[in-house]
Amino acid sequence: MSLSLYHSSVPAFERCLAAFLAILDKAEAHAKARKFDPTNYLGMRLAPDMFPFVRQVQTFCDNAKNGPSRLAGVSAPVFEDKEATFAELRERVTRTLDYLKTLDRQAIDAAVEREVVFPAGPNNKFKMQGGNYLVHYVLPNFYFHLTTAYDILRAAGVEIGKRDYLGAVPGIEPA
Amino acid sequence: MSLSLYHSSVPAFERCLAAFLAILDKAEAHAKARKFDPTNYLGMRLAPDMFPFVRQVQTFCDNAKNGPSRLAGVSAPVFEDKEATFAELRERVTRTLDYLKTLDRQAIDAAVEREVVFPAGPNNKFKMQGGNYLVHYVLPNFYFHLTTAYDILRAAGVEIGKRDYLGAVPGIEPA
Repeated sequence: MSLSLYHSSVPAFERCLAAFLAILDKAEAHAKARKFDPTNYLGMRLAPDMFPFVRQVQTFCDNAKNGPSRLAGVSAPVFEDKEATFAELRERVTRTLDYLKTLDRQAIDAAVEREVVFPAGPNNKFKMQGGNYLVHYVLPNFYFHLTTAYDILRAAGVEIGKRDYLGAVPGIEPA
Repeated sequence: MSLSLYHSSVPAFERCLAAFLAILDKAEAHAKARKFDPTNYLGMRLAPDMFPFVRQVQTFCDNAKNGPSRLAGVSAPVFEDKEATFAELRERVTRTLDYLKTLDRQAIDAAVEREVVFPAGPNNKFKMQGGNYLVHYVLPNFYFHLTTAYDILRAAGVEIGKRDYLGAVPGIEPA
């Protein structure tokens, strides 16, 4: 009995991305109630040398798109980093969700020991076995940028909590 | 070919906890260089109604201890939440690492479809299948609190980056 590589990746990204669409709704509602432009969130950062909110969102969308793509052995489309509005951020998340539906489960599942090559920064390429790549690289990177995007909104006063971040956890029931 | 539940959990927690010990060293060095008491970090928060740094650390340590324990079907020891110094934070992380070494891999691996019962808050208990529990509950919670602890230090000026967060990624090589 074991976990499939598909089930350890794509459904987790789908849960989080869908949850993040609802977080964007709450952030926009907060801006409306306080009468400021929601695009003000896009440039906010936790430190002056960290990525701003918009780039945190672009990055976790790319982690979710490119990680499973590389496991499946296919080239993911490149989504240009040019979002400047909340509508465009939603579109980025939605396009990522739509793309995840196109991936072949069996191709992903077959990648546990297959070598995956991936860029890290503009000048470096690395390789890892698929299972390690998911567990030790894709998931920690994805959750890092997702949580930091959440933390930026939370520090900005948006009324969100852990449940908003977790989203619809599948198969959870009162015990 | 698939991932084992053990390999999807314990080695990831071990990598992150070991990396966090080095992050604590950098935070302490930063305090020393700036001549402030490193225990000042413990009460820092990104928002007034978020957990402070010390509780973020306690929580991700507990996620790492209790998640795999429940998968293995054993009761984890309770670590009292009373850390007040950096030495005590290191001890919390180290005790968690030591405890993870005691868990039975085969018992964890056997839990993919087994029902796991876990508390959520003081009054609620939930149940999930082990595989879903790891992928959709334990991992997102662990990375949430770990990243937020990192973000608190980063916003406080500690010179850390993504590599400090990721730690020693196993099997990664230049391609």
